This record gives sequence, structure tokens and C-alpha cells, in this order.
Amino acid sequence: MRILGLDPSLSSTGWGVIEIENNRLRYVADGYIKTDPKMELPARLAVIHKTLADVIDAYKPDEAAIEQVFLNDNPMSTIKLGMARGVVILAPALYNIPVCEYEPTKVKKALVGVGRAEKSQVETMVKVLLPGCKPKNNDSSDALAIAITHYNYRQSRALGR
Amino acid sequence: MRILGLDPSLSSTGWGVIEIENNRLRYVADGYIKTDPKMELPARLAVIHKTLADVIDAYKPDEAAIEQVFLNDNPMSTIKLGMARGVVILAPALYNIPVCEYEPTKVKKALVGVGRAEKSQVETMVKVLLPGCKPKNNDSSDALAIAITHYNYRQSRALGR
Repeated sequence: MRILGLDPSLSSTGWGVIEIENNRLRYVADGYIKTDPKMELPARLAVIHKTLADVIDAYKPDEAAIEQVFLNDNPMSTIKLGMARGVVILAPALYNIPVCEYEPTKVKKALVGVGRAEKSQVETMVKVLLPGCKPKNNDSSDALAIAITHYNYRQSRALGR
Repeated sequence: MRILGLDPSLSSTGWGVIEIENNRLRYVADGYIKTDPKMELPARLAVIHKTLADVIDAYKPDEAAIEQVFLNDNPMSTIKLGMARGVVILAPALYNIPVCEYEPTKVKKALVGVGRAEKSQVETMVKVLLPGCKPKNNDSSDALAIAITHYNYRQSRALGR
């Protein structure tokens, strides 16, 4: 079973794939999709979409997870994040891959044990939980954290907790 | 030359296609994409994307135009609109069709002559400018208005105004 974690933003969308085998987590791949702010918006969205489609084709995840949105005070930032987020969610949806959403506090809780953990603690735990994994950057590390969160909640649900 | 006008929203995205021949406008088609609020978000975004891809395949527009975003006071509404908007802009972008954005006041000015026109005045002008056209609903009428706006600004640019 493979899980694709996604951390969307217009400038840099993180992605990470993990695998579950005999109830153990394994790192598969991670990366980020940078788009040039000088490019026009439609072209930037197309880059995000095409790269994610390539990632899905290459790693064939069974399920996907995305962080629930962080609402910015700046409406223009919120709309930009929304546009990236819509395009990011669309990619697995077009492949009929289910997408779950998790609040940022749930991601922190799943990895560090507390909802108010520091970002650096989450990054450390990603490396602890996925031995041998060196995330490409913060965005792909966040994406892996979201994938791990999905695995945890999935297990809890399976156990009826 | 065909122009696709787009009025995005998660619940009902309007679209309209017009044609320019010998500097005259002609109505080609219009419609709206309703998504069921009971469906999950990824599935709703997939419906919008697939329907727009079908519209582009069927009517083969050369250029597209979209209203610039109306920023809502409610951040959750803004993010939803952003997600729909990202998916709507993506469709022409994947077909290498250029997409222009126009502020709502520019649409009103292009159709009625003033930036503070009423919505009903814009609707009336759509029917006047596209003889024989009976827009399917308000959203598709708005989409046709955006397509007409793009034609007007295109003409002004061509004439060096």
C-alpha cells in the first residue's frame, strides 16, 4: 500500500510517497515542484498538474493525503493557495485515488505526539520514522509527514479507535 | 476566432463560447457545471475539470477569459473559490490556450459602459450583443459577458488604444 502526501503552494508544492508493508513504513520518494513567479498563473498551475501526474504515474499511490488549509489573513494569499490546492487535489482525483485531509495540528500530533509541536520536531520525526530518508526540502518533508499522518489515522480507524 | 469565457465557482461554474467573424460577434454555446455539495471535494473538482475539457474539445476555443477574483470576507469561501478557480484556469492552460483575467468593473464597463452597472443590465447587454442567444442561467450569462469583454479589450489592443 502506497500513500502520497501533498503540501500544496503556488511557488513550491511538496510531495512524498511512503509504502506500508507488514505494518512497517518505508520511504519511497519525495520532491517538490517549484514554479517560476515570473511565469503566468495558468502556466504555473499547468506545471504543478503535469508534474503531479508524472509522480502518480511513476509511483502509483493507492491513497493520498493533504494538509487542511491554513487560512491566511491576506485574502490574495488565500486565493493563491486555494488555486494551487485545487489543482493539487485534482491530480489524484482524476486517477480515482481517494484524498484525505488533515488539520496541521493532527499532523503534529501524529508525528510528535502534541498538536503544538515545532516544525523542526516534525522534520526530525520524519527522518526517525522513515529510516534512510533525507527529505529534499521542507516542503517534501511536510508532505512525507502528511503521508505518515494518513497511515496513523488509517491504522486507528482499522483498529476501531 | 473563438473565445471561451469562464465564471468559476465550486457549486456552479459558468462557461460561454463566442465567435468573431469579420469583426462581428456570434453566439456559439453556453452552459454551467453544477456540482453536488454532498459529493466530496476532490470529486467535485474532477467534475469541473472533465466537463471543461469536454467543452474545449467540442468548441475548440483559441483564447479564454476569466473574471478576476472577487475577494470574499469569509476566508473559507475564498479558499473554495480559489480551488475552483485554479481547476478552471488549468483546463485551457493544459491545451495551451492563453487565459486573460478581467476585473468585474472592466466586464461591466465593456458591456454597459459603466463600471458600476447592475448585474441585470449586463445580462440584457449579453442578449443584445449576441442576437438569438438565450443564456442557460446567470453563470453562463456572466461567462459570455467575460468572453465579450475579452473581445473588446483585444480589439482595443489591436487598434493600439
